[in-house]
Amino acid sequence: MLENITSAQLKTMTLKELLALCEEIREVITATVFKNGGHLSSNLGMVELSVALHYVFDFPDDKLVFDVGHQCYTHKLLSGRYQQFNTIRKKDGISGFPKRDESEYDCYNVGHAGTSVSAALGIAKARDVIGKDFNVVAVIGDGSFNNGLIYEAFNSLRLLNTNILLILNDNGMSIAPTVGSMHEYLELLSENDVQKSKMDRHAKIFERFGFAYDGVYDGNDLEQMINKLFEVKQRLKHESVILHVLTKKGKGYEFCEENPESTHGISANTAAVPVGEYSEMLGKTLVRLAKDDDRIVAVTAAMTSSLGLSDFFSSYPNRAIDVGICEEHATILCASMATEGLKPYYAVYSTFLQRSFDEIIIDICGQNLPVTICIDRAGISGSDGETHQGVFDLSFLSLIPNLTVAVPKDINEFESMLEWSASFNAPLAIRYPRESKKIFGVKAPIVLGKWETLKEGNSNFAIIACGERAITLAMSAADSLDSSGISVGVINARFIKPLDTQMLDSIKAKHIITVEDNMLIGGLGSLIDGYFSQSNKVIKNFAYSDKFVPQGDVGELMRDFGVSSEEIVNYIKSNENR
Amino acid sequence: MLENITSAQLKTMTLKELLALCEEIREVITATVFKNGGHLSSNLGMVELSVALHYVFDFPDDKLVFDVGHQCYTHKLLSGRYQQFNTIRKKDGISGFPKRDESEYDCYNVGHAGTSVSAALGIAKARDVIGKDFNVVAVIGDGSFNNGLIYEAFNSLRLLNTNILLILNDNGMSIAPTVGSMHEYLELLSENDVQKSKMDRHAKIFERFGFAYDGVYDGNDLEQMINKLFEVKQRLKHESVILHVLTKKGKGYEFCEENPESTHGISANTAAVPVGEYSEMLGKTLVRLAKDDDRIVAVTAAMTSSLGLSDFFSSYPNRAIDVGICEEHATILCASMATEGLKPYYAVYSTFLQRSFDEIIIDICGQNLPVTICIDRAGISGSDGETHQGVFDLSFLSLIPNLTVAVPKDINEFESMLEWSASFNAPLAIRYPRESKKIFGVKAPIVLGKWETLKEGNSNFAIIACGERAITLAMSAADSLDSSGISVGVINARFIKPLDTQMLDSIKAKHIITVEDNMLIGGLGSLIDGYFSQSNKVIKNFAYSDKFVPQGDVGELMRDFGVSSEEIVNYIKSNENR
Repeated sequence: MLENITSAQLKTMTLKELLALCEEIREVITATVFKNGGHLSSNLGMVELSVALHYVFDFPDDKLVFDVGHQCYTHKLLSGRYQQFNTIRKKDGISGFPKRDESEYDCYNVGHAGTSVSAALGIAKARDVIGKDFNVVAVIGDGSFNNGLIYEAFNSLRLLNTNILLILNDNGMSIAPTVGSMHEYLELLSENDVQKSKMDRHAKIFERFGFAYDGVYDGNDLEQMINKLFEVKQRLKHESVILHVLTKKGKGYEFCEENPESTHGISANTAAVPVGEYSEMLGKTLVRLAKDDDRIVAVTAAMTSSLGLSDFFSSYPNRAIDVGICEEHATILCASMATEGLKPYYAVYSTFLQRSFDEIIIDICGQNLPVTICIDRAGISGSDGETHQGVFDLSFLSLIPNLTVAVPKDINEFESMLEWSASFNAPLAIRYPRESKKIFGVKAPIVLGKWETLKEGNSNFAIIACGERAITLAMSAADSLDSSGISVGVINARFIKPLDTQMLDSIKAKHIITVEDNMLIGGLGSLIDGYFSQSNKVIKNFAYSDKFVPQGDVGELMRDFGVSSEEIVNYIKSNENR
Repeated sequence: MLENITSAQLKTMTLKELLALCEEIREVITATVFKNGGHLSSNLGMVELSVALHYVFDFPDDKLVFDVGHQCYTHKLLSGRYQQFNTIRKKDGISGFPKRDESEYDCYNVGHAGTSVSAALGIAKARDVIGKDFNVVAVIGDGSFNNGLIYEAFNSLRLLNTNILLILNDNGMSIAPTVGSMHEYLELLSENDVQKSKMDRHAKIFERFGFAYDGVYDGNDLEQMINKLFEVKQRLKHESVILHVLTKKGKGYEFCEENPESTHGISANTAAVPVGEYSEMLGKTLVRLAKDDDRIVAVTAAMTSSLGLSDFFSSYPNRAIDVGICEEHATILCASMATEGLKPYYAVYSTFLQRSFDEIIIDICGQNLPVTICIDRAGISGSDGETHQGVFDLSFLSLIPNLTVAVPKDINEFESMLEWSASFNAPLAIRYPRESKKIFGVKAPIVLGKWETLKEGNSNFAIIACGERAITLAMSAADSLDSSGISVGVINARFIKPLDTQMLDSIKAKHIITVEDNMLIGGLGSLIDGYFSQSNKVIKNFAYSDKFVPQGDVGELMRDFGVSSEEIVNYIKSNENR
């Protein structure tokens, strides 16, 4: 019955039909995620709640804002996207996150944690200013609830003088189990045996900020959810409400229920078997280094296992800190621990590091402290789309004084860089993609700001590239050109800051080609352009043009942006006689 | 007696002597701030509390972390910096903020709000890991208490399993009066007639996070502060404590007590009389535009008056929002209000906008929403030093897709840009310095991405500059070169994104000089270097090299970084025959 369902139809269905619909939704989600990859357990937990929301509220007139957004699959299926659902997370397909361009039912794009309450308040405030009349609902997981943005939004609720419904979807997990005092507090609120009067007192935190608190309810009990939402909808006319519901991550699929962390994100089936993952190398190397160096501490923001640090956390519990989804706080913790002589490693996804921009400038680099930022999922990250691409980091990091920015060419060089970093006494960022597919033979020792020549050439062209993906393209282009009789040198720019000016000055070729897995503006190419701005070198940059990078397969997207060995070969061939 | 005071001496003084010391400190601070400029009222409020801290704790073995840091003057006077105190905020003088390089008594550099609790926790955690034994004290104002970082840090207190003392210095003000529910809550805690039992219940918010709450006390009562701090110091062995004290901003100086907002920051006496301020133009123009356009709303983060928006706030209270020191939340509010058809103007200092980096990418530009960011105090901001310079914005903004970045050449062009912005339907950033000193005659209408020629030239050199300061240097250099018979054209690059490629292509001069009040990496110069990377143009960039810009006079600092009309003239003269 899911096939042609509309919001209007849904509202005419019996409870029994709705329950059957939930089962159908679960089947579709599970089958699709195992095929396309995606977020499984969080979406399975949200089925009943989403059906109830669509039953009670009138979307798209009413507005539904998600936090992070990876729990929106049922919402998509119920808002006219069943037919396209098999394209989810694929190139040109529908997004795994809410997206305004895709449907009027998606009113606010998300991807990073903690934005939903602010966004819901802004939409509600705009409604009041304009004089419209609709309801605004935000759904937030307990993991996002750790983020400081929530507090900033709560703090301005009374000031904005508007009403929203905030549904706290509590499954005790962000990706890893949720940590911190707010989580403990939510657990306390969830204890069924707490006396009602005592509960009322506990709930005071939310009431301080102007929310009426109503909880705890079973978010997987469809009938209860529908009744409760009808009741709360009436209250929204005169107050803002937090509705605290408990859902089971992976609900209805036993393996997921038992393994919510490993089934949070499922990878699509792919033919290519990677050599390994950079995250594994990070974990393995840090565990080894920390054995002899008790200054080493590791910090993450709710990503311990995905970053490869599970072993470190179990081996050195006293030197391992997961602060929850708090990238800014994590950055300052690292800086301040470094002031006392510790050697912090802050592991984080590239896209989420954007949240720490100010603290990298002021706290780490402004104090010139030896914090190493290990930046995973850098470059195009693939199916999660625009909000999750790690394509800005080379640009926003290289503009910061005192920061050294390193880009390993393969996992072995990553290992060497980590070893080198242990005795490097200043701010350092190392960025790398998820998968390792290639090992390059050359292995020159790591020296600050020194590049290595991967391939000598004697033509008028030299390629400078950084990172495994770009170097793979560069080497492949150079090999192909060799067979056309054009001998092109390839340089591994393993530090993009500082640049290896000695090597740059030694380049005899008139034409320099740069290749990177990053935006053109501000990246390796821009730095090289700047270095040669007064010379007569002709420089061609292969990098991503000034557009957001959509979802899709990594290699395909790189080609779409013109970053491919074919394009490099074509450019060199067509400029051979210039 | 302040002249040669040491921590050891302080501890031997009688209460009467200490009170006399406080008076002497007040006199020194007041006299110095009126001479050098600086933060007056916040420092006058902190005198007794700072003396008590130095009396009770053993700095620098114990660690004292400030939030924002502009309230550290007494601390500096008590830690061996009396002799240099008259150099405060001057070039090569001592900083108006804590600075590790300056004294071992300053353990953590600050400048932006909300970092103190995280930093204190990191230092305490490092102490525990290393196995040292000292106390960690953080002092935070109630204004900073709105920032989300506080919540992130609170949330991890139990998790880090360490003890700190957090002194909440509550004067009811950030720079403007503090807003929001947390402020109302602090006021509630401060009501003396609240019964003790009821108070205990109110204090539960802090206890939820693992802090023992102790308050409220008079932070200007030296004797009470000393006794209370001795008591709390003992408790730190087994718990973390929040000590809530009330202080009077501007204490002891009647005019300050009555005018805490206007005496928050005092400007140094200077001879130059500015034409006006960009902030005035912002306020005046927005008030005018909003009259006919009811989509216009203004958002600030605790800076309403300094940004020139007081009139807007009183004229359109329903369309004016000050969220407190919450730059991230403010950004999302703007984006979300824009989704519903409003036209938000987010006014903010350049340095604080760094906090919104991720939200500018994801929320504003990722959704391509018509939010206008009005960036004040851009470029070198002067005496506040490293943490407050607005020299990164052109770099971190120009790397973001969908964002238009505009830089007016004077306040009149700023007015035209604001008028133009009202009908511009996409993300826009306009950046400008504080003071307006010059009006340029030429006034071509604003067209997206179109530059204007300020001066024609027929030599082999052309200057491209953006913003009042840089254009002033460029015009002055061109005038000076005219008298040497070298006719150099000057172009006003009033959009640095998109670049005016038509005008760039039309430049006949082989040599292009760029001038800007921003870092070299990623700024206007880098964009021009990139544009011409395949041409044979010779490009010389005048911008700030890759170092943090220290405190000092704006013009002097620009010259120190080689950004001056003399340097431009010298470069052109010495390359005339190249």
